[in-house]
Amino acid sequence: MTATVYGVGLGPGNPELISVKADRLVRGAAVVAYFCKAGRTSNARTIAAGLLAPDVTEIAMAYPVTTEIAFKDPAYNAALKDFYQDCVARLTAYTDQGRDVIVLCEGDPFLYGSFMHLHTRLAGRVPVVVVPGIPGMAGCWTATGAPITWGDDILTVLPATLDEPTLVDRMGRADALVIMKLGKNLPKVRRALTTAGLIDRAVYVERGTMAGETVLRLADKPDDAAPYFSMVLVHGQGRRP
Amino acid sequence: MTATVYGVGLGPGNPELISVKADRLVRGAAVVAYFCKAGRTSNARTIAAGLLAPDVTEIAMAYPVTTEIAFKDPAYNAALKDFYQDCVARLTAYTDQGRDVIVLCEGDPFLYGSFMHLHTRLAGRVPVVVVPGIPGMAGCWTATGAPITWGDDILTVLPATLDEPTLVDRMGRADALVIMKLGKNLPKVRRALTTAGLIDRAVYVERGTMAGETVLRLADKPDDAAPYFSMVLVHGQGRRP
Repeated sequence: MTATVYGVGLGPGNPELISVKADRLVRGAAVVAYFCKAGRTSNARTIAAGLLAPDVTEIAMAYPVTTEIAFKDPAYNAALKDFYQDCVARLTAYTDQGRDVIVLCEGDPFLYGSFMHLHTRLAGRVPVVVVPGIPGMAGCWTATGAPITWGDDILTVLPATLDEPTLVDRMGRADALVIMKLGKNLPKVRRALTTAGLIDRAVYVERGTMAGETVLRLADKPDDAAPYFSMVLVHGQGRRP
Repeated sequence: MTATVYGVGLGPGNPELISVKADRLVRGAAVVAYFCKAGRTSNARTIAAGLLAPDVTEIAMAYPVTTEIAFKDPAYNAALKDFYQDCVARLTAYTDQGRDVIVLCEGDPFLYGSFMHLHTRLAGRVPVVVVPGIPGMAGCWTATGAPITWGDDILTVLPATLDEPTLVDRMGRADALVIMKLGKNLPKVRRALTTAGLIDRAVYVERGTMAGETVLRLADKPDDAAPYFSMVLVHGQGRRP
């Protein structure tokens, strides 16, 4: 009797933007797991807070290091390997007893999600079911009140962790842009957008679809603080009848 | 007393992947509208079928021409302009009477969605609320059982309506690829992926998350039929611990 691990996308942050399927799974969960930074509240758990059963068992998977920065350091990689292996051991301790585990994931699990690092280690060992969610970027472009792509626009999704020349090159070829993983990279993103001639079209979105939602032109943003739920968008300007 | 037009994303096709908010709005709707091809069932209406009230008023907006092909023909553009203007008149006939209209949209309304053509004409005239949905592409990459992006992978979303040299160029620069709007463009997409050296990594997904879901290597697909709910994906291979 093997139980199942569910990687459940919870959408961009507004609890009403969880799917009906995710809502059902989270409400019915006896065991939930989620990633968090050490000593910090899990963003995924916050989205799901109103749905959790009072007696739910919670597995908090606290990162040993930050993942905001693209580290090439082998020690960083090794620490994460050990961490994910430990997470898998904690989850399979439940599934080995026939108990399903629901892993709470912000956005969509298979789009730059941490869950994929569990998925690749769990696959073939226990049944894994992934439930897609509304990506954070869709919440952010909806918050701007304008479509991200028109007609034949190409959409490019860029992690801000890339080096500046790569960012400039890709921005310069883009019709519509989503820039994710801002964190400490916002000054670099500003410079790259300026070099690419796009700074006046760039829109900064923070907490899209959530309480405290903020949308402003990046050029009007006075500081370089970019919390977890933030992105920069450049809307496409393609063909339209 | 002005009513509101809601553009409601219904997700990739599986009715359980509608958001809780969309579920609530569609169940409570007195008037719904949806796009369709003349003489054909609306895909959006099919997703929402189980939620509609028995006495709901339905506004079927049937395209005068196909939108699968990128026409440069000014007559095509003019026909669509008239069509969208007519749709707006039909919707505002209800909102002028104080009756909300729920526009049913596949996927996410602001990502290559037809609703944006109503949105841009309604904005400033009646209140418009957009509810994001799980994009079709997220349903498709979930169907493949593998993450679309890893680490610093750049995700490129390409409409298959682009010309072949542009497709080859963009494919060649891509880490992870989503190719949308296949329709009659699948032979061109195959050739472009072959030229770009990606044909062996390309995955064809049809009806992702729905009954009849099909996932296979594009190289193994024996024909060039690509119905409405189909995409080609190339998964990223980026950094992972």
